[in-house]
Amino acid sequence: MIIVLKPEAPADSAERLIARIKDAGLKPLHMPGAERVVLGALGDERVLAELALDSDPAVESVKPILAPYKLVSRELQAHDTVVDVGGVSVGGDRLAVIAGPCAVESVDQLHETASAVKAAGATMLRAGAYKPRTSPYGFSGHGLEGLRILREVGDDLGLPVVTEVMDTADVAVVAEAADCLQIGARNMQNFALLRAVGAAGRPVLLKRGLSATIQEWLLAAEYLMAAGNAQVILCERGIRTFEPATRNTLDLNAVPYVKGKTHLPIIVDPSHGTGIRDLVPPMSLAATAAGADGLIVEVHRDPAVAVSDGAQSLYPAQFEKLMSALAPVAAAVGRSL
Amino acid sequence: MIIVLKPEAPADSAERLIARIKDAGLKPLHMPGAERVVLGALGDERVLAELALDSDPAVESVKPILAPYKLVSRELQAHDTVVDVGGVSVGGDRLAVIAGPCAVESVDQLHETASAVKAAGATMLRAGAYKPRTSPYGFSGHGLEGLRILREVGDDLGLPVVTEVMDTADVAVVAEAADCLQIGARNMQNFALLRAVGAAGRPVLLKRGLSATIQEWLLAAEYLMAAGNAQVILCERGIRTFEPATRNTLDLNAVPYVKGKTHLPIIVDPSHGTGIRDLVPPMSLAATAAGADGLIVEVHRDPAVAVSDGAQSLYPAQFEKLMSALAPVAAAVGRSL
Amino acid sequence: MIIVLKPEAPADSAERLIARIKDAGLKPLHMPGAERVVLGALGDERVLAELALDSDPAVESVKPILAPYKLVSRELQAHDTVVDVGGVSVGGDRLAVIAGPCAVESVDQLHETASAVKAAGATMLRAGAYKPRTSPYGFSGHGLEGLRILREVGDDLGLPVVTEVMDTADVAVVAEAADCLQIGARNMQNFALLRAVGAAGRPVLLKRGLSATIQEWLLAAEYLMAAGNAQVILCERGIRTFEPATRNTLDLNAVPYVKGKTHLPIIVDPSHGTGIRDLVPPMSLAATAAGADGLIVEVHRDPAVAVSDGAQSLYPAQFEKLMSALAPVAAAVGRSL
Amino acid sequence: MIIVLKPEAPADSAERLIARIKDAGLKPLHMPGAERVVLGALGDERVLAELALDSDPAVESVKPILAPYKLVSRELQAHDTVVDVGGVSVGGDRLAVIAGPCAVESVDQLHETASAVKAAGATMLRAGAYKPRTSPYGFSGHGLEGLRILREVGDDLGLPVVTEVMDTADVAVVAEAADCLQIGARNMQNFALLRAVGAAGRPVLLKRGLSATIQEWLLAAEYLMAAGNAQVILCERGIRTFEPATRNTLDLNAVPYVKGKTHLPIIVDPSHGTGIRDLVPPMSLAATAAGADGLIVEVHRDPAVAVSDGAQSLYPAQFEKLMSALAPVAAAVGRSL
Repeated sequence: MIIVLKPEAPADSAERLIARIKDAGLKPLHMPGAERVVLGALGDERVLAELALDSDPAVESVKPILAPYKLVSRELQAHDTVVDVGGVSVGGDRLAVIAGPCAVESVDQLHETASAVKAAGATMLRAGAYKPRTSPYGFSGHGLEGLRILREVGDDLGLPVVTEVMDTADVAVVAEAADCLQIGARNMQNFALLRAVGAAGRPVLLKRGLSATIQEWLLAAEYLMAAGNAQVILCERGIRTFEPATRNTLDLNAVPYVKGKTHLPIIVDPSHGTGIRDLVPPMSLAATAAGADGLIVEVHRDPAVAVSDGAQSLYPAQFEKLMSALAPVAAAVGRSL
Repeated sequence: MIIVLKPEAPADSAERLIARIKDAGLKPLHMPGAERVVLGALGDERVLAELALDSDPAVESVKPILAPYKLVSRELQAHDTVVDVGGVSVGGDRLAVIAGPCAVESVDQLHETASAVKAAGATMLRAGAYKPRTSPYGFSGHGLEGLRILREVGDDLGLPVVTEVMDTADVAVVAEAADCLQIGARNMQNFALLRAVGAAGRPVLLKRGLSATIQEWLLAAEYLMAAGNAQVILCERGIRTFEPATRNTLDLNAVPYVKGKTHLPIIVDPSHGTGIRDLVPPMSLAATAAGADGLIVEVHRDPAVAVSDGAQSLYPAQFEKLMSALAPVAAAVGRSL
Repeated sequence: MIIVLKPEAPADSAERLIARIKDAGLKPLHMPGAERVVLGALGDERVLAELALDSDPAVESVKPILAPYKLVSRELQAHDTVVDVGGVSVGGDRLAVIAGPCAVESVDQLHETASAVKAAGATMLRAGAYKPRTSPYGFSGHGLEGLRILREVGDDLGLPVVTEVMDTADVAVVAEAADCLQIGARNMQNFALLRAVGAAGRPVLLKRGLSATIQEWLLAAEYLMAAGNAQVILCERGIRTFEPATRNTLDLNAVPYVKGKTHLPIIVDPSHGTGIRDLVPPMSLAATAAGADGLIVEVHRDPAVAVSDGAQSLYPAQFEKLMSALAPVAAAVGRSL
Repeated sequence: MIIVLKPEAPADSAERLIARIKDAGLKPLHMPGAERVVLGALGDERVLAELALDSDPAVESVKPILAPYKLVSRELQAHDTVVDVGGVSVGGDRLAVIAGPCAVESVDQLHETASAVKAAGATMLRAGAYKPRTSPYGFSGHGLEGLRILREVGDDLGLPVVTEVMDTADVAVVAEAADCLQIGARNMQNFALLRAVGAAGRPVLLKRGLSATIQEWLLAAEYLMAAGNAQVILCERGIRTFEPATRNTLDLNAVPYVKGKTHLPIIVDPSHGTGIRDLVPPMSLAATAAGADGLIVEVHRDPAVAVSDGAQSLYPAQFEKLMSALAPVAAAVGRSL
């Protein structure tokens, strides 16, 4: 950690800060310059972060040298983590393609959609029983009944299921029903939920928050790992920017960047990442070419009457066409479907 | 609601959509133009929103006419809501000044800080017992013990207390200990928490999310009101932008804008809104001049050793000086301290 | 265009606005609703935009129905424009790969780099003679001498050359030396430059501004076309967001979105779009998979000593490897190199 | 400057980089740590910036210690610069209030508006003869004729005039007609224009770019000062964020932050900063309370028929009311009108 003192800092500031660094069991460095006094502190940066030296009135800025996360870091584990979700691998050579409707609406709706995506090559089923909705007047999911339908359809078709959990009070029931728990974008920094899901013993799909930096996202994953869960899948789903043409700005830069920083697998959600049905296929191909370990795609048997997210849901025939187009792109980057 | 059809939409699309609008009990309008067919739908826009006409493949875009919130709207209630927090009004002529440390660290630390802010003119005490922390390795608050200390110090000094609740499981205990429940920026769209806090029977301080639009923020307040709680205080605390010089970008535009849209009071948090101690006083004055109903300011008896947010916490002497500077600005805009 | 009146608008407002709409030669519509009066205006939206009805104190909001651009719109021209740059097509089946150093530093530097990128398969050469630099103390290019070198190296190797022009005063000399004029991100809304370059009779590479919406970008292209130049290539190069991990956030959503709106070709700059050398190859593949018509990539014979943008410049060997990896991805989406 | 090496950097990297630092005439430091080798370099950071050590493949990151600007820095000049614009001071105790219409439309329109703002207390006149317009079909100003009218009206009323210049080709004529040259937000990084205006011998009003960091803005001011012009007024006018409710997000944090970093005066433009007429008065008060040295406000004799920016222009009566409200706020922060 590098500590830059203010030009007007009293003469004894450096001494005082060096003492605090030493007290924390770290090694201090003193670098007096012409225009600024700079201090260094060698050792565990997480200990240093807790010292909060930037609170000191003599300090102009603090610049960390090491990343604040550890368990998720590729420096700790060089090889890729492969997460097993009900028998389907996420993170290996084969792309994981998760598909399904935004919400569980009925047995029929889910079964028909799930059958279609399975036939087209999807290997996992997604659908929400608990739905985050911007308005209190929107459909917020069928809850327990939705979970039951999801489990039943997944079992019937032999597809592992992924579904969102939004409340610590629901973690146990969702963990019983689902093969993988999703933490949604709006809950990425719901730290109570991260801790509860981290302790639930199920693989986790961790979506990036709408305005989360990559570092904050990896720290959210660190919460899960620190709670004992190493089965974490990251999911880029678009960030919020000034651009109104698309629902979000899908940040595919994050895919290769994250793969350099962590051993955890990363998949991409082009449905929320664009919000526009016609952009989902090209962005699915782009995500794959960028090196993503998989995709999560919204598909509905009849998007025009979907209760939520219909505008970004593919028709089954579009999904089938996407899977055909995906195969050669996956092959071009050394992956299979 | 205005529905614009795609230029290539099949000829029967308008008819089909008009039928859906009628079925929902709304009045349709048909406006065929040279380059686009435009439909109108008159009636409750929330019903229309649930129809999700933008999912229809014939639809290019949907433009709502009315705001999606109702209970919080000034169109429903023209006069200002004044929230009573343990005898202190928020929303009336007198500015509400809430001050205190980021976290409850100890009885001593809180009592000394609270005494100082009370002496300087603060009318409410803030301090966290449950702290959201980006890293799992940070101090996350003293929990129940923190609540107990907060209540004790508040009672001792006769200051109503505000504190954050982060988990639905904690709502009951926090509601018992605190006069006002804070929903933090990261939980603004934690809908399970909004419902639980809305039902808890205590005034609520609802912080704006880091990347929440004003409309989403008002919809979060609508969740609280729809759950039966009309005692809602909005709190602007800065949004996330590209600017790295400050921790957040305090959006003071939101103050007069929000006051035009809702009857709820709005206060400003210049501490998180800037992240820099020296910017807190001028931005407190600016918030007041912009028409805010109050301030929430972090003050610590010794910020240099605060366990969290020290860099943005005022020294007690700075807070005292701020209060002196605030009085004439408040008077200039017709408010008192 | 849809005009929504304020609830408190005086009773005669609709009449007055309808008169203004008629005076402009457009057809008005009157849609009185329970909570708002809504007006429609059918006809040329550009005429309506100039009426600026949102300035009227009775108007709450104005919602355009049609895009404000015309010449660049796919509604005007359904088939793709193919731009010819010195014999190289941009916009057809073959991907255009433009490569070269950030700046012309010397004949040797440029010739060696250009030879390497040509050998690897690049079909066009890029290098700056006029360099936009954030600081007045940075190297700002060799100017006329740089242009001379660029032309000489291009001619020697048979590569068309692309270079930036930053000042209306330089348009003539740059147009004489280069096959394609680049308008940089910082000048995307330098309207005087757009008009001058639009009249210069050379193909134009129009980079997206750092904070330009797609609509503003297409309007900048409309400036060029309105000035008589139909040979416009759009270039997505990353937008500015809150994410500090990468220099910019490459917005690949823009690629398929733009192709739906305009007939103009679009290429991608993964060098500025990421700012990090190691991210350039995967994002080049992603851009291609997303449907881009080409790439513009910074390559330097020795990036470690480049005078500018070295951190994002590829080594020649990396570029060669990228081209090998690119071929199967291009083939997978029906393009060739 | 702090240079952090990659963990996998070859053993001789530090030695090589230290040699480069020495060759540049700077003093190197070597700080080998357990997880990273860190280097320091003491001396002129602008020399170091040009070394571009982040281009070296062994380097993970580079962290500057000093700001990249010098002439504008308060470290170079501790006392406030007061700019004299035709006899009106900007930067002293008295607030500078610049008002007028967006564009010069006619002698009548300008004279009537200017008379009204003068009567209300404005001390300088603004109006555009060259207007940046997003669309090529918008009114782009009356050019030379507009300049002539502006000068005439300014002289007649004894008000110094400020107007925008957009093209290096127009700098001479605008400098002849105006007392202060405005560089608009879209041209903040039009470096050719900055150099030309810097050499024109007139005070400059430098608007912040839509997505410009404060550091980039100060570097744009450094361009002007490096070109020999010390008469620079900064103008905060809102930045582009995700929030659609207002045209821009007025960043008042920038006011006290900038005053800590530079000796140059800073004024605020609440008209562009909000885009909404009703928000202009409260945000004018807020800007003043935050410590701004002045305001620039759009006023039109009849905004409903203004050719541009009518929605954010005040009616003369509103401006008069604003001036009355401003006086006590200014007094509260020790300023006069």
